[in-house]
Amino acid sequence: MSALTHIDEQGNAVMVDVSGKEITARSAVAAGYISMSGSCFALVAQGRMKKGDVLGVAQVAGIMAAKRTSELIPLCHPVQTTHCSVEFAMLPEKHQIAASCTVRCQGQTGVEMEALTGVSAALLTIYDMCKAADKGMVISDIHLVEKRGGQSGTFRFEDADHV
Amino acid sequence: MSALTHIDEQGNAVMVDVSGKEITARSAVAAGYISMSGSCFALVAQGRMKKGDVLGVAQVAGIMAAKRTSELIPLCHPVQTTHCSVEFAMLPEKHQIAASCTVRCQGQTGVEMEALTGVSAALLTIYDMCKAADKGMVISDIHLVEKRGGQSGTFRFEDADHV
Amino acid sequence: MSALTHIDEQGNAVMVDVSGKEITARSAVAAGYISMSGSCFALVAQGRMKKGDVLGVAQVAGIMAAKRTSELIPLCHPVQTTHCSVEFAMLPEKHQIAASCTVRCQGQTGVEMEALTGVSAALLTIYDMCKAADKGMVISDIHLVEKRGGQSGTFRFEDADHV
Amino acid sequence: MSALTHIDEQGNAVMVDVSGKEITARSAVAAGYISMSGSCFALVAQGRMKKGDVLGVAQVAGIMAAKRTSELIPLCHPVQTTHCSVEFAMLPEKHQIAASCTVRCQGQTGVEMEALTGVSAALLTIYDMCKAADKGMVISDIHLVEKRGGQSGTFRFEDADHV
Amino acid sequence: MSALTHIDEQGNAVMVDVSGKEITARSAVAAGYISMSGSCFALVAQGRMKKGDVLGVAQVAGIMAAKRTSELIPLCHPVQTTHCSVEFAMLPEKHQIAASCTVRCQGQTGVEMEALTGVSAALLTIYDMCKAADKGMVISDIHLVEKRGGQSGTFRFEDADHV
Amino acid sequence: MSALTHIDEQGNAVMVDVSGKEITARSAVAAGYISMSGSCFALVAQGRMKKGDVLGVAQVAGIMAAKRTSELIPLCHPVQTTHCSVEFAMLPEKHQIAASCTVRCQGQTGVEMEALTGVSAALLTIYDMCKAADKGMVISDIHLVEKRGGQSGTFRFEDADHV
Repeated sequence: MSALTHIDEQGNAVMVDVSGKEITARSAVAAGYISMSGSCFALVAQGRMKKGDVLGVAQVAGIMAAKRTSELIPLCHPVQTTHCSVEFAMLPEKHQIAASCTVRCQGQTGVEMEALTGVSAALLTIYDMCKAADKGMVISDIHLVEKRGGQSGTFRFEDADHV
Repeated sequence: MSALTHIDEQGNAVMVDVSGKEITARSAVAAGYISMSGSCFALVAQGRMKKGDVLGVAQVAGIMAAKRTSELIPLCHPVQTTHCSVEFAMLPEKHQIAASCTVRCQGQTGVEMEALTGVSAALLTIYDMCKAADKGMVISDIHLVEKRGGQSGTFRFEDADHV
Repeated sequence: MSALTHIDEQGNAVMVDVSGKEITARSAVAAGYISMSGSCFALVAQGRMKKGDVLGVAQVAGIMAAKRTSELIPLCHPVQTTHCSVEFAMLPEKHQIAASCTVRCQGQTGVEMEALTGVSAALLTIYDMCKAADKGMVISDIHLVEKRGGQSGTFRFEDADHV
Repeated sequence: MSALTHIDEQGNAVMVDVSGKEITARSAVAAGYISMSGSCFALVAQGRMKKGDVLGVAQVAGIMAAKRTSELIPLCHPVQTTHCSVEFAMLPEKHQIAASCTVRCQGQTGVEMEALTGVSAALLTIYDMCKAADKGMVISDIHLVEKRGGQSGTFRFEDADHV
Repeated sequence: MSALTHIDEQGNAVMVDVSGKEITARSAVAAGYISMSGSCFALVAQGRMKKGDVLGVAQVAGIMAAKRTSELIPLCHPVQTTHCSVEFAMLPEKHQIAASCTVRCQGQTGVEMEALTGVSAALLTIYDMCKAADKGMVISDIHLVEKRGGQSGTFRFEDADHV
Repeated sequence: MSALTHIDEQGNAVMVDVSGKEITARSAVAAGYISMSGSCFALVAQGRMKKGDVLGVAQVAGIMAAKRTSELIPLCHPVQTTHCSVEFAMLPEKHQIAASCTVRCQGQTGVEMEALTGVSAALLTIYDMCKAADKGMVISDIHLVEKRGGQSGTFRFEDADHV
């Protein structure tokens, strides 16, 4: 079998068969960043004090996108997420906003893609809401921070071999 | 009015009123990267010679996600895209794949978010298809390369003032 | 913790963590009404004798919307509904149509929102199909009639303390 | 032809043919209410001062649902909304929250259903976020406040003949 | 350029660029059949006299699926359908039901795929609703009956060169 | 009770109650064909040697549509598919392409509709990608090849009584 499990021996794309896998508790955390100009960052920071602000909308967008991951990622299994949250940290020195998304489920397959999709949608929503002030924003460093549960066990980004 | 056009004076999130804007030809190009281990990069590169490979699936995922942007980004207007394409470049020295997404429409609002969403979904799909081989992949540098049309005219990332 | 379980201590919107909850049989019934002019009511009543009538379409709309509740209600968990039905009663004295929606699942979270969403979509569909005859229709009294199963046990609207 | 334009002479459900209609500016405003216990109302009112509060999430839900109206209401035409906003008013004497949704488009068909769907989804989201504190909440009086544009011209609820 | 317009010279899948095409009135009609056992056919025929029957539900399913064609068919452009209807004919001698779907729009691209998707979803829904009585049903002869409008003009299946 | 389980005694459309059914391993295989002109068939056959070809895109479309079956087929239960694959065979003598779709789940209800929807979407996508070369293509013989698991046990099309 191929080391890329979504491609079978004939080169076909398939949704990997997880029918025989155990239902276990699974969780995943993903993170990423958006960098913007100082003036744009200041507008977001001020808005944060108000209702309906940029980060409030981005939080909802991230959670809703995480739930729809299997509609967006072609070979991703549908999962019944039992928890999803999106959090932000303002990093004033770099004019950056950090986003993270945590997802949990009881299932036969992991929720890495849900966490990564949630964080991506949250960052894209920040871009959308701020693009009138700055079109040069950059989304970067979207990665899986940690995943737990399932056959392959725990993964931590910091322990990974980045070669 | 606020400089962040999606937030009105009372702090409410609104879909900006574009009713009075002209219908013009609009286009946008966005780009981004995914970095992976050398061994994972080699698997993708080999697969590229076959049908149903990683990049073929990611291309379809990017185009399909671009069409659904207004479902994912809360305050984004629905648009009738008249063209969408996703392209990849293999960058062997850095074990990176570059992705770009081009979107066009005739409408009252731009397609920047469609291009950015398309490129994000394509890169997330690469992650999904390769994660059995490498969970430490990093998606980075997602940005708007260029947009044309509409009241604010042409934007080029390289000309932008990144402060 | 906040009494509003969807908001954490920092004021963030979160999808409540139900990972630790037992999978139990759950059901919910919701109801609501639409009031219309006498002439519009008569048209619906006559149509009811034919195929493809207003209530037949509204029934399908309610069932389909109930299945998509977690896409519409931001912090609602996805559930695998095992049963859904929508019923109507014609109330000629008041020119009203009563709608109710019953949903069941085996899961870690209740189906109250599915039942309420189903009944809302059914009533909105009646409005849509009749609005050429009457735009002054009013949808009212959408409420949870009953829910069973889960940690909080049985709720009956009639027993609730409406203060 | 039937007075119910969605049903043809054979009793079939059809999406009304608007191919020959002019593209004009159209708008619609819908409103509705949710009543709750005094203690639940107080929790929402306090939350309003913080980010990520109940009404902030409900606002996003209403706007996103309005954009997807044609997916939910079977015979509703797809429209390209050019504006959508959702607003709330707290009514402390009655422990009620009033919601309204305004939608605009340039098109061949009106946006009444979009406004009604937006207000319904916003009120359902308030129910979802508060149901841990009060399951006896009631959604009521969802109606079209006003619509403008199109062949049938302006409609105002207050002027309508409610017989 | 390739004769298959969805594949460019490099073999990439693309959404064909229709930006430069004129907005014209377009229509398409597609048809297909489902064959079933005599006893199953009799059950559907009887049900047709009642509300909520098999064909009433299939009609709604076909119309709703036609509206979502661009979500299902990867390289299909989103269109704003201005009309959609689904019709059935009972063919007792062959225990067949014929379905047809008619779609219209004003746009830069045709609605052939919308009509074909609508007829397919209607037939699949008949299968779903009757499968407890007969799992051996066969869906056949789904084809484009006619299309009008656009650069390539009128197509009629009966005139086509079927080699 | 009616022999058509989706219609109750009053003629209402309902999502059949499967709450009491056991969770068992279930699978289904569906198949179908598309016939085209010889010249069109040759174009597809050549494209098959390249990336991003017609069948690669159709494969992804089939898998993605299978996952969304319960959104398209009104009374179909949502299921969590644990496996989905789409395969093609080129039949040069008849200028036909055969498609099959295999789906598996652990659940309370079968996946026949998922397999049939997947094969239909794959064939419609082939039509879409080839229609510039041949609008006279015909999709035919979509049927359930086999299903396993659940109360009604194994079904094989070849063993069925086609009267």
